Amino acid sequence: MNQMETVKLVVVGSTAIDNIETPWAKRKNLLGGSASYACAAASFFTSVGMVGVVGEDFPPEYMDLYRRFGINLEGLQVKPGRTFRWAGAYEENMDERRTLLTELNVFATFRPELPPSYRAAPFLFLGNISPDLQAHVLDQVRRPRFIVVDTMDLWITMAVETLRAVIGRVDLLTLNESEARHLSGKHSLIKASRRLLDLGPKYVLIKKGEHGSVLFSREGMFLMPAFPLEDVQDPTGAGDAFAGGFVGSLAAGGRVSEGAIRKAMLYGSVIASFGVEAFSLDRLAALTIQDVEERASLFRNMCRVR
Amino acid sequence: MNQMETVKLVVVGSTAIDNIETPWAKRKNLLGGSASYACAAASFFTSVGMVGVVGEDFPPEYMDLYRRFGINLEGLQVKPGRTFRWAGAYEENMDERRTLLTELNVFATFRPELPPSYRAAPFLFLGNISPDLQAHVLDQVRRPRFIVVDTMDLWITMAVETLRAVIGRVDLLTLNESEARHLSGKHSLIKASRRLLDLGPKYVLIKKGEHGSVLFSREGMFLMPAFPLEDVQDPTGAGDAFAGGFVGSLAAGGRVSEGAIRKAMLYGSVIASFGVEAFSLDRLAALTIQDVEERASLFRNMCRVR
Repeated sequence: MNQMETVKLVVVGSTAIDNIETPWAKRKNLLGGSASYACAAASFFTSVGMVGVVGEDFPPEYMDLYRRFGINLEGLQVKPGRTFRWAGAYEENMDERRTLLTELNVFATFRPELPPSYRAAPFLFLGNISPDLQAHVLDQVRRPRFIVVDTMDLWITMAVETLRAVIGRVDLLTLNESEARHLSGKHSLIKASRRLLDLGPKYVLIKKGEHGSVLFSREGMFLMPAFPLEDVQDPTGAGDAFAGGFVGSLAAGGRVSEGAIRKAMLYGSVIASFGVEAFSLDRLAALTIQDVEERASLFRNMCRVR
Repeated sequence: MNQMETVKLVVVGSTAIDNIETPWAKRKNLLGGSASYACAAASFFTSVGMVGVVGEDFPPEYMDLYRRFGINLEGLQVKPGRTFRWAGAYEENMDERRTLLTELNVFATFRPELPPSYRAAPFLFLGNISPDLQAHVLDQVRRPRFIVVDTMDLWITMAVETLRAVIGRVDLLTLNESEARHLSGKHSLIKASRRLLDLGPKYVLIKKGEHGSVLFSREGMFLMPAFPLEDVQDPTGAGDAFAGGFVGSLAAGGRVSEGAIRKAMLYGSVIASFGVEAFSLDRLAALTIQDVEERASLFRNMCRVR
């Protein structure tokens, strides 16, 4: 996308430098963070603007990479200090992850400010940052058409009341299976989603990793399997790429309906499936929209009951 | 189905008396066994004949129940001795099961014999019994149009060579996720299914419980979620009800194609989802084909990308 284009989707989240270990590889100083994955994923579908913060040590080649994705960076603050650093290790089979290091650095004092050009964007994705900051972003926007919020266990434990209030101000809440259970106090995802819908959003989208995702609304459910992969190199950011691809694809269509949301979930899954085939944004950086459409069509066929 | 109808599907498997414990209930002397679940499930779609064995203690009311499902019982042997008994306990959340008791009784010397009226049936389901006995059944049939085989860990450990040979003689192998990994030696289900297809069947259908099922063929994959349930009373027999409903629905259509197989998987999931809503065959006994069609249509809608 061209930097001059009006931003249709604003993404707020973290940008990080990651060290990642898998059973087969160790990689250092990778570009990571929820905003990086979500913006890169969304950039295949729409003009996206990033709201985040990096330190003065942020590698210029990563800034270039953001630009190559066509991400608008007016909302990316560069602050004195070091960029947020995260390190994690995956177990055999990639289903369990241990955090080895969290160094907040400039992210500790992050205060998201939307440039004027972002404030009327019709789509907003509040990635996983503190509910206080998510609320601060909501205070700056002019009635977006559709707002998606993500969260994590930390905020459910530390700031559940603020989080509930934020959820009450958005259209769609996305979170993973265990977070949905934690926040609702219900094991059954059907019961959990009912409680979460009671907080106010029209939709609850539960991510189940390799088992796909489920969309809940007052009217019913949509079940989406995950695109099956033979080899996963690095699952980091899969949920963020899914969410970014999802909102990006929705923003591209413009109109929001249950049908559009289902189609957007398909595109979110496809982008996430590419993302985990390599470390960091490596696979997404090499991806074309033709690759995306091809896999989307293959995937659609894999899900179709005749 | 009428007992006089020609049997279109033959099901071979176990019939058992089960004691089952869940975190919320304890039930004794329930009708169980793979053939019971599979035949009951199939009976909604086609004329099904059971091949199995019971002891002289088998309760007449369970024989009546089989008849009420319209199951042809010519192939059910009644032998001196006690019926196969099984007891199991489910953990919280129903995802883990411990076997408390296995008493083979008359099942220890079971030798499946097909009545002449079964031998030309176009569809055959070899439920989970020893591969030796499965092979013995294959020796008695006249070129069925479609043969499905199920198995379990015990036979993968105890009789893998005979099992491989049986798999080479059927059209579709069905087994659960961990069994597919065990039999193939591959963790990735894509790689596992490739190995299993190399044994000879045209299709491999992997059951993933609450995460649905996946169909693999040389041409590709079909991903089917499970019908989402708020409360599961008793998961016993879910895999057998799925398989029975699947083959039964396939037999009803007559022609076998990938499209027909996908549709049959939908019906198998629907029947299995009803089955686990109560203990034993209680829910299936109260079910009408209208209930089945209604849930199938709801489920189809839940899976449809617009």
